[in-house]
Amino acid sequence: QSSLSALYADHLAEQQRRTEHALQRGGFDALVIASGIEKFAFLDDRPYVFQPNPHFKLWVPLVQHPDSWLVIRPGHKPRLVYCQPEDYWHVPPAAPSGFWVEHFELIIVRRAEEALPHLQVPGRLAVIGEADAALGELVPNNPATVLNPLHYARAVKTPYELMRMREASVLGAKGHLASQRAFREGASEAEVHRAYLTAVGLAERELPYGNIVALNEHCAVLHYQYQDVAPPAQSLSLLVDAGAHSCGYASDITRTTGNGDATFQALLDAMEASQLRLVDRVRAGTDYRDIHLAAHAECARVLREVGIVKMEEEAMLAQRVTSTFLPHGIGHLLGLQVHDIGGFMKDEDGGLLPKPDGHPYLRLTRVLQPGMVVTIEPGLYFIPMLLEKLRATPAAAHVDWAMVTHLSAFGGVRIEDDVACREEGAPENLTRDAFERLV
Amino acid sequence: QSSLSALYADHLAEQQRRTEHALQRGGFDALVIASGIEKFAFLDDRPYVFQPNPHFKLWVPLVQHPDSWLVIRPGHKPRLVYCQPEDYWHVPPAAPSGFWVEHFELIIVRRAEEALPHLQVPGRLAVIGEADAALGELVPNNPATVLNPLHYARAVKTPYELMRMREASVLGAKGHLASQRAFREGASEAEVHRAYLTAVGLAERELPYGNIVALNEHCAVLHYQYQDVAPPAQSLSLLVDAGAHSCGYASDITRTTGNGDATFQALLDAMEASQLRLVDRVRAGTDYRDIHLAAHAECARVLREVGIVKMEEEAMLAQRVTSTFLPHGIGHLLGLQVHDIGGFMKDEDGGLLPKPDGHPYLRLTRVLQPGMVVTIEPGLYFIPMLLEKLRATPAAAHVDWAMVTHLSAFGGVRIEDDVACREEGAPENLTRDAFERLV
Ligand SMILES: [Mn+2]
Ligand SMILES: [Mn+2]
Ligand SMILES: [Mn+2]
Ligand SMILES: [Mn+2]
Ligand code: NI
Ligand code: NI
Repeated sequence: QSSLSALYADHLAEQQRRTEHALQRGGFDALVIASGIEKFAFLDDRPYVFQPNPHFKLWVPLVQHPDSWLVIRPGHKPRLVYCQPEDYWHVPPAAPSGFWVEHFELIIVRRAEEALPHLQVPGRLAVIGEADAALGELVPNNPATVLNPLHYARAVKTPYELMRMREASVLGAKGHLASQRAFREGASEAEVHRAYLTAVGLAERELPYGNIVALNEHCAVLHYQYQDVAPPAQSLSLLVDAGAHSCGYASDITRTTGNGDATFQALLDAMEASQLRLVDRVRAGTDYRDIHLAAHAECARVLREVGIVKMEEEAMLAQRVTSTFLPHGIGHLLGLQVHDIGGFMKDEDGGLLPKPDGHPYLRLTRVLQPGMVVTIEPGLYFIPMLLEKLRATPAAAHVDWAMVTHLSAFGGVRIEDDVACREEGAPENLTRDAFERLV
Repeated sequence: QSSLSALYADHLAEQQRRTEHALQRGGFDALVIASGIEKFAFLDDRPYVFQPNPHFKLWVPLVQHPDSWLVIRPGHKPRLVYCQPEDYWHVPPAAPSGFWVEHFELIIVRRAEEALPHLQVPGRLAVIGEADAALGELVPNNPATVLNPLHYARAVKTPYELMRMREASVLGAKGHLASQRAFREGASEAEVHRAYLTAVGLAERELPYGNIVALNEHCAVLHYQYQDVAPPAQSLSLLVDAGAHSCGYASDITRTTGNGDATFQALLDAMEASQLRLVDRVRAGTDYRDIHLAAHAECARVLREVGIVKMEEEAMLAQRVTSTFLPHGIGHLLGLQVHDIGGFMKDEDGGLLPKPDGHPYLRLTRVLQPGMVVTIEPGLYFIPMLLEKLRATPAAAHVDWAMVTHLSAFGGVRIEDDVACREEGAPENLTRDAFERLV
């Protein structure tokens, strides 16, 4: 564990540097971070599943700790105010232990209100948290001058963070392999979902985002949000978009599986080759928007190769035919959040980099730097609402509608890997590496 | 389905009457109810699981419908503004269909903002919803003068509501039977949890409250919130507190199972008999606080019968010995919410009925009326933190500490049924009836 300890120490030192820089830019003396409080349903005493402030879990591997706080000051060890109620109603948080504890000035409190005196350090305070985390006169102010440089910097992961994301990738890959086995045995969406959870060892509430588990034409719904309890008469295709967590860091993985149908398999094979070419573009200095545009060129190539659209690729792009089949962005930043913040930032002042015209759903427009982790998730879908619109355009004459009808029963394809940009050369594919470790 | 239709029509007529009465008391002309909007995690685009406004699902069996609204006016059919976006990212809500549709003036909108003109009826509007549901100048005002009579009345269920709660009880009972089978096969907490979900046919996010699934000493944590992935070396006891939903109505059921150990079985048997005696007290005109106090007398009786505490029952009560073993309330109102609102209301003006001295966790202090549904959930636990305090009192001399140590490995017992108060005579036990239908 000494390498873990060293990695973590370096990670904290980097966060300390970034924070001191951000405080200086904003004209503040200390950063106070709320983990957040439990939220309750309207007129009810039933809590929502707790979602920690990402700024909090950037520093400590604690994700189930409401009412706790961090205080970061130049020249001081970070202070953790750790709320550990004496409570026989629930299992209270365990006494702090593990590799991370020694790096903090640790203050344990028994009730949320007791944190306040330990947060009131001298000077001007930047307080990051939601309004409901306010404690007496300590009210979150979330100054943009401090948040912007922190959000901008967070896109670049430390070696400690990359290690956590590799762990999250291995967990997710386990779940995907189990899902595919369940699919081959004729499982329903609900059963595939449970097979995923069982293999990963997480409860549904612990997932980084809601599992997308789609059979057949449901694969065409980008964020398909249900899981049918009954299996369909015939299972043609499975699309699972699901990740996992390690110490607060997420993976975000999609795999699509067919039933051996030759046309759908040809589509899957073409998408696989295409996705790998796009992954290879994750290199320092590349504008991510260019990868998105390249994904549309790749989409045109796949449509032609498989024979779905019989047009020149350039003509398809000019006539926006690919947007029918690929209506989402090619990916996003990944880290503490599944869609990690800061994807549109031009610089640490808060300026924005625009999306390419006609591509409203792209979530990342920055130039790639070493240490950034992004998803590369091309898709090709048969979405009735969009196909209808295509039918009304001149390009419709070049579409093999019989093939579209055949493939519509499969819904579509998405292949999503988590990819880290390196200083030089080809990127690290966290997802493919994880699958390779397992098979 | 004609009896369903008639039940539902009667239910709506009753809600209409209650609403007209509440509007009149508050001096308002119409009631506008927001279903609620999706909420997002801090600095994130990831939504929380949607929790509908209970006032909304009182009228319509719709629980996954953000951005929809109801308008209730004296002398008018209730208006439902139903938001059905054209969205290829998600499966949009289906076109309204089923037994309930004919009872509404139905207006379908494609975007949240489009609801506004359909909500701006003439007169003074009482608007029930959270602040974030505001739509332009239509801002929730939640007038207490209207909410209080509605909350007070909701404790009494209509025959339609009782039918839904019977359905939710059958679902929950299925899950409990499956949990017990899994326990007998040596399942871990996580496996028991999944067995429950599989049998009920719900995903975790669809449960009315987080399942409590505890093995061994975890049974002593009243709201045990984890599920261990690995089974313990030996499974002694299982406590499952878990319910289900039918059209927005909840069940809330607890069962405790042993491994055949004679002392624990004696405790289980004594608790079972005791719980049934308490259930029988659910009768019109009974002050629920008296049932809570009777539960402490029952607890004393069980402690003496099993031989855990060798004291006269009256002396145990006088010295508050039972509060060590039964530190929670005997139950609560149940309905659209697991802890249905209004448990402390003296009348429809918003006056409160106090809890008995020394019983801070009781959630219901009203006099029972026909149609009220309450839980009856006595427990008897071996909670280290509370046993330590007992050890420091004179009563400690009368405790069989060897037996306490033996039973502490089992954690504790809770038995919880959902019980409807009748006009006359013995109550309806929704939970026991459900189990009987299944075995
Ligand atoms: Mn993604
Ligand atoms: Mn994904
Ligand atoms: Mn209960
Ligand atoms: Mn319960
Ligand atoms: Ni979505
Ligand atoms: Ni709880």
